[in-house]
Amino acid sequence: MPTIKNKKNIATTKLFKIEELDINFSKNIDRKYEVISGTGEGAVMVLPVLNDNLIFIKEYAAAIDDYSLTFPKGKIDKQEKILEAANRELQEEIGFKANKMVNAYTLDLAPGYINHKTYIIIASELKPSKLEGDEPEKLEIVKCPVNSIPTFLAQQKNIDSRVFAAIFIYLNFLQDE
Amino acid sequence: MPTIKNKKNIATTKLFKIEELDINFSKNIDRKYEVISGTGEGAVMVLPVLNDNLIFIKEYAAAIDDYSLTFPKGKIDKQEKILEAANRELQEEIGFKANKMVNAYTLDLAPGYINHKTYIIIASELKPSKLEGDEPEKLEIVKCPVNSIPTFLAQQKNIDSRVFAAIFIYLNFLQDE
Repeated sequence: MPTIKNKKNIATTKLFKIEELDINFSKNIDRKYEVISGTGEGAVMVLPVLNDNLIFIKEYAAAIDDYSLTFPKGKIDKQEKILEAANRELQEEIGFKANKMVNAYTLDLAPGYINHKTYIIIASELKPSKLEGDEPEKLEIVKCPVNSIPTFLAQQKNIDSRVFAAIFIYLNFLQDE
Repeated sequence: MPTIKNKKNIATTKLFKIEELDINFSKNIDRKYEVISGTGEGAVMVLPVLNDNLIFIKEYAAAIDDYSLTFPKGKIDKQEKILEAANRELQEEIGFKANKMVNAYTLDLAPGYINHKTYIIIASELKPSKLEGDEPEKLEIVKCPVNSIPTFLAQQKNIDSRVFAAIFIYLNFLQDE
């Protein structure tokens, strides 16, 4: 296993920290890496299942200055439990509360250079329930039958990479339950 | 569509840039966002197909200080074409060259806060061919039959989120070709 010999903070903002790592591999090979970490508790992405449909949202994505297709998601607040965060985001973003939630997977975004965990939550037994969130505009809600997902995704643009992961996990790791 | 009213560079390192954006939504709602962009040309992730197997690598991932399961991948060099980068990474990381490559998808990592594109390349008709890369240690290579992928992934840890996306794209968008 390589050894981190030195760690230096090279940038800190409200949301992110960038560190430079000096890492020693075997055969005395040394390399410098830059890695990003979030300053918070990670994020949840919630895959809502309603009558054999999945519920997506279209949300303005600042980094690409365009709308992206994603699932309800957001940062976990301090002191908040993972499933509490998931049910809060569901109510804020699509106006449903889940009576059944499974913390299905802890996803690593791009572990080579970002230490960011997204908890993939499968939410079902949904009932209407609305909480006011901090969204700057109303989100567009898009439903798709589970068995049409590949065709649907092939027609969409700017899909958050974690959507593919969440669907793969739902279809392959959990549907037998 | 929201409008970016102001953009301010708040951190620049060798690999990353963090900007603060002032964004105006309808109803005169203003919000500040922090977004990260890479300083390069984006990255390739190559899904190598050999005799109905997919070829993975296990690579040290600095941001989580552990090994991660991923596909051959890397940054596109300046002046390098996408498929050139893909075939170079293949030869450097697993010792194969592809005679057939499909630039299958342009993946957005987390478009809410990172502007980072990963081109998903499906590589087949592989022949042994080794190039010396800049890897600090030899990579472990792991093959898995296509029809055992869900079981295999369920047993692995620290999987790069883009692996799920690449496999979803391969299985659903391309296999009919």
